[in-house]
Parts: sequence; structure tokens; C-alpha cells
Amino acid sequence: MHRSEHPGIFITLEGGEGGGKTTQSHLLSERLRADGWRVYQTREPGGTPAAEALRNLLLFGEAEFCWQAEIMAHMAARADHLAKVIHPALAEGQIVVCDRYHDSTWAYQGYGIGQKKPEVLAFINALRQLVGGEPDLTLWLDLPCEVAHKRIAQRGGKLDRYEGQQVAFHERVREGFQAMAERDLERIIRVDAEPSEVEVQARLYEVVTQYLAQKRGAS
Amino acid sequence: MHRSEHPGIFITLEGGEGGGKTTQSHLLSERLRADGWRVYQTREPGGTPAAEALRNLLLFGEAEFCWQAEIMAHMAARADHLAKVIHPALAEGQIVVCDRYHDSTWAYQGYGIGQKKPEVLAFINALRQLVGGEPDLTLWLDLPCEVAHKRIAQRGGKLDRYEGQQVAFHERVREGFQAMAERDLERIIRVDAEPSEVEVQARLYEVVTQYLAQKRGAS
Repeated sequence: MHRSEHPGIFITLEGGEGGGKTTQSHLLSERLRADGWRVYQTREPGGTPAAEALRNLLLFGEAEFCWQAEIMAHMAARADHLAKVIHPALAEGQIVVCDRYHDSTWAYQGYGIGQKKPEVLAFINALRQLVGGEPDLTLWLDLPCEVAHKRIAQRGGKLDRYEGQQVAFHERVREGFQAMAERDLERIIRVDAEPSEVEVQARLYEVVTQYLAQKRGAS
Repeated sequence: MHRSEHPGIFITLEGGEGGGKTTQSHLLSERLRADGWRVYQTREPGGTPAAEALRNLLLFGEAEFCWQAEIMAHMAARADHLAKVIHPALAEGQIVVCDRYHDSTWAYQGYGIGQKKPEVLAFINALRQLVGGEPDLTLWLDLPCEVAHKRIAQRGGKLDRYEGQQVAFHERVREGFQAMAERDLERIIRVDAEPSEVEVQARLYEVVTQYLAQKRGAS
């Protein structure tokens, strides 16, 4: 897929529930900052006032969206996030670390909710091309669904509409990430999210620093 | 443009502010019902709980949307409206009368806000094709902007974000409807909205009954 030209580096963290993406995004950003990089940490759905308003409708709202509307509303939030936050930060040469992005739409709306229906996947792909903003590097925090399930149960608190889904849903979501990783081997690195937070952090940092060294070598 | 196959008839009312679309939609629906047609009257943005929630964000929300996000959020609302309300009513053979639809996105987001920029118009067209659901007949209630302006001022009340725009904006919106009408002569009928409510109603009813007679003759 086409990556936009910019002096920054766009890193996304992807994966199902319970893989520690939020914590790891934060730890990775801090570590890179400590190394002297300028890092902008953000998340989806959300990241701008308009996108957060859409996030609230999508994750916690009462109204049900038909599948096309749900996907488009996610993409609308992404377009806003991209235009106002991600693109400007990349244009300044920052590293952007984003918790969830295009691949989550593919896995959750395409595989989880959309059950891999070809018309749903084609719809997502068409919108993805329209919105653009492909990441340079994607870290897929992968976790067996039974482990994820236990972690979410332990965490407690209010579940959003995806966390509250059945196991079969989460199996399909994982399959979605797997399919995307096979399709985009160069961009997506699978990272085992089962080890401890510290071990996962070390592995993520290793992958990112290798990528940065490679990129520096190439330029 | 492609129209979907269904036993119903999909009529949209389009045009700038102050042309009386809401009143005329209602009067037209009532008149057709009195003639024995089953009519579903609706409006955009809105028409379903999810679409109304998006309408609130778009028309009265605090958060600003980038142009892509604004267009996609409108299209998301439309997709929901289409899937849950318009398609089912058409599939049942009803006449659907919808106050604003695809052409409003073209005129408001494409011409008004987007200032006819080719990338904006291309973005709208791509989404329009993805969402589909083209109307069978569109009644464009056209009004010179200075007349519209006077009518809105007289009406009073809270203005939404489009009503509150400058004259140049409304001139471009009108130009957008004009351009679409020239492009789709068969579907779009311009109706002069300057005469009295009763006269405009009579003209709309005349156009619609001619269309229905023609359609009946053809089938």
C-alpha cells in the first residue's frame, strides 16, 4: 500500500482486546522520547474533538449504526485525526505512535462484525484508499483469545461495545489481523503479547529501533 | 447515474435555504396520500437514530470537522438512513419523499464549503457511488439568494451552521445545484420557489403526477 511522503515516522499499535496496546503505546513513546525523539502519542477512535465525539457515538451511544454507517463514521473520525493531528506531526518530522488505526477497522468491522463478507471488506478497502495515511510500521500485539478474555475480566470496569462481544467475534478479529499481516508483511510485525509488560516493551522497542536504524541507513 | 431496482419511487426535494422544502415535502406527501399512494416522508441529515445523532454533531456540535470527515459523517448518516428506512420503504413499493439528499452534499460540502475544489468534488462522487441509493426524481426548489436571505431572516429562530453562512456561500450552493441539474437533466426538475406556497405546491404536484403517469405507462 502507498505510504505518504513525509519526514516523520508513523507507527501504529494494533491487536485485539487485552493485549496492552494502550500501556505499550505509552511506554514506547516515553522510551523513544528518552532517546531524544520527538514523539506524538495518540489513539483511535478519537484524537481530535470531532473524532472523540464520533468515538462516543460509536462505542457508547444508544443508536445502532448499519454496517456501512459504522465503517464510514470510523473513517470520518480517522480523516479528522489524520488531517489535524497525524499529518501535521509527521510533516514536522515527529514520530507518531497511534493506538489502533486502519487495521482495526479491517479486523473489527470487516472480520468481527462484518464476518469477512466480501462486500464489507471491499467497502472498507475503498474507504481506506480514499482516506489514505498508511502507517510506516505496524506493531501487532497478538494474544490468544482465551488469554485476552481473562485479562479483560480481571481489569473490570465498563466494557465498550467491542469488549462485550462473544469469543467467536474476538477469534474473527484475530483472524482479521492475521490476514492483514500476511498481506502486508513489510509493514506489520507480529509481537507476542503474552509475556510480561516489561518483556513486551523490550521487544517493541527492539523492533522500532531496528526500523529507525534501517530508515536512517537508507536515507 | 445508476438507480437501484425497486418497486417504489424515490423522490428527493433539494435546494438552498428558505425555499420551503420542509413544508413542501409535507404538503406533497399529504396530497399523494390523499390520492391513495403509500408515502414515507423523511429528511436528511437524519431519519434514523444514528443519523439524527450524527446530524446533531454536524449541525449543532461544537467540534469542527475537517472537510473529509464532514463529508464522510454526512454519508454515514445517509447510509444508515438508506439501509434502515429508504430501502425498506421502496422495497415495499412506497413513495419515499426525502427532504435533502445526495445533491445537498454536492452543493453544500462540494460547492459551498469545498469551493468547487476538484479533490473535494471527486471525494464526494467516490463516496456517493459507494453509498448508492440514487433517487428516481429530484425536485430542485430554486430561489435567488437575496429572496432566501429575507425569508430566513423573517423566520427567525436558531440558525444551523449552514443558514448562518455568508451570501457568497449560498451563491455557491445554488451554483452547485445548478451544475448537478445540468449534469442530470433527466432526474432533476428545477421548480421556481419564489411564487406562493400554494403555487409551488401545485407545480410540484404536477411534476410528480406526470412522472407517476409516465412510469405507470412504461411498466
